[in-house]
Amino acid sequence: MYSTAQYTNFFISYLENQIIDKEPKNLYDPIAYMMSLGGKRLRPTLMLLTTEIFGTDYKMALPAALAIEVFHNSSLIHDDIIDEDPIRRGKATVHKKWNTNIAILTGDAMIILTYQYLLNYEPNLAKDLIKAVNKMGIKVCEGQILDVDFETRQDVTVSEYLKMIKYKTGALIAASMKMGAIIAQTSDENCELIYDFGINIGLAFQLQDDYLDLFGDTPTFGRRLGGDIISNKKTYLYFKALEILTESEKELLTKLYAVRLEDNTDKIKTITTLFLKSGVPEATQDSIKKYTFKASKILDKINIEEDKKTVLRDFAESLIGRRV
Amino acid sequence: MYSTAQYTNFFISYLENQIIDKEPKNLYDPIAYMMSLGGKRLRPTLMLLTTEIFGTDYKMALPAALAIEVFHNSSLIHDDIIDEDPIRRGKATVHKKWNTNIAILTGDAMIILTYQYLLNYEPNLAKDLIKAVNKMGIKVCEGQILDVDFETRQDVTVSEYLKMIKYKTGALIAASMKMGAIIAQTSDENCELIYDFGINIGLAFQLQDDYLDLFGDTPTFGRRLGGDIISNKKTYLYFKALEILTESEKELLTKLYAVRLEDNTDKIKTITTLFLKSGVPEATQDSIKKYTFKASKILDKINIEEDKKTVLRDFAESLIGRRV
Repeated sequence: MYSTAQYTNFFISYLENQIIDKEPKNLYDPIAYMMSLGGKRLRPTLMLLTTEIFGTDYKMALPAALAIEVFHNSSLIHDDIIDEDPIRRGKATVHKKWNTNIAILTGDAMIILTYQYLLNYEPNLAKDLIKAVNKMGIKVCEGQILDVDFETRQDVTVSEYLKMIKYKTGALIAASMKMGAIIAQTSDENCELIYDFGINIGLAFQLQDDYLDLFGDTPTFGRRLGGDIISNKKTYLYFKALEILTESEKELLTKLYAVRLEDNTDKIKTITTLFLKSGVPEATQDSIKKYTFKASKILDKINIEEDKKTVLRDFAESLIGRRV
Repeated sequence: MYSTAQYTNFFISYLENQIIDKEPKNLYDPIAYMMSLGGKRLRPTLMLLTTEIFGTDYKMALPAALAIEVFHNSSLIHDDIIDEDPIRRGKATVHKKWNTNIAILTGDAMIILTYQYLLNYEPNLAKDLIKAVNKMGIKVCEGQILDVDFETRQDVTVSEYLKMIKYKTGALIAASMKMGAIIAQTSDENCELIYDFGINIGLAFQLQDDYLDLFGDTPTFGRRLGGDIISNKKTYLYFKALEILTESEKELLTKLYAVRLEDNTDKIKTITTLFLKSGVPEATQDSIKKYTFKASKILDKINIEEDKKTVLRDFAESLIGRRV
């Protein structure tokens, strides 16, 4: 086995050879642009890693890893339109650099390309992989619809938020791992277990992301602390606080999440105080602990050598900052 | 064999049993709404018909027919956003009845559902059908991008317009017929020939649509004569006229296609005069004749009984108003 950084590099080399330079330019340039913006390449890396953990050469997984990364980026393009985000990874989003119409069609073409890459496999394997992508793709769409719904609803519960991120983030991470297991032709039981492991890792990862946005020591690249507050993005911190705060505090929090300001210093300060008062940081860490513990219990059941489990534990730790 | 109207009805009955009533409502309600808006069900009908022409029970083609109709409708939803069309088949478009964000995600989910329906087939057949859908889907996206590009370009030629409608309209009709042939497991040669037949029928159909919009005797349901002129939709008539008109006439035509008016009587009258003067109606009919003739020559080469060819000739005539 290689290191996770090496799997990422294998994928990046493969990706660089797949750029489509075709007409019409207004379709293929945005695809190439989006795919070259970088990012952690988390999903392909997880897929290659999982394929090898179940005893098959990672090279077998490269077309499927490309499929999942292209699908992920198609959903980011449409997400950026929906969220009206002008910037992604420090660069202009597709709908800003080109326009919304081109961004809609680019995303559509990338969904289709996802399935094209999966036809590289022999029919039975292709069918199983496509089935996994369909299930995941529908969940991602459902999650995004829930996310859109939440923006106008005032009664969203923490458990509804968790369901949304399970669909929107967890399903993609879980499907990436499951597809690696499918390619390695391991048992159905292992495929289901690694999927469930991925769901829990995905949830812990998203909650950690929500947490670090405000309570992180070193803001991640291109971000500053409190970015979600500035853009009024309601995350776990917000929904958890609403469960705990008094009526008047809730009113204040809701009001603050409805305004857009030039200077956000006071807004971030007030909201941070409300979060701290209601024990939100501890509650978030408890929740992350719960999902990493669940992931760990699932990992125990998977039928692979202990040293392979250690690889997964290491990777999860690097991702979530907590050992599973 | 049944009549084409019967194939349409078989499909409609099948479709009515497939409505997904699931949560989240804001994803599955727009899908059900869009699929229930009706329309000619041209593509599924062509697929069932083609399957039987090549000697296989139409029932085999029902899941693939549903796939193609769902894909077609997904592209209509995204097209309506792009064209800012408020009305489709006499009812509010999805982005008007719900909103643009929901319409984007509904279209995405419907692309994924397309592939889900195709997994009803055994692996080898599923792979061939998915390959056909991928090829078609990419062409449709390319055609839509060209269409978007044309709106801001001043130098679009008739041959570029033909390429665009070949991708945007022809590819879907051709793929529907090819998929019927694939399901019937006829020869690869027959599959290619029926695809080419479909491309030419599709082109003739679109040109006839362009023609009838202004020069039809009885406007089709929900439309009035000159609807394309009112909405400044540049069709074959427009690009063909530009090829023939003098500089000053061209300038007048271009100007008229840049304004939106309350009362369109004079605009339609002036443009009709320009089209008649430049022989556009005859040129359009010549072009339709050319593509139906090409379709007819291809049909001659397909290895099926003469009475089956008659079925295709009848259907093409009902579609284009001209015998192939």
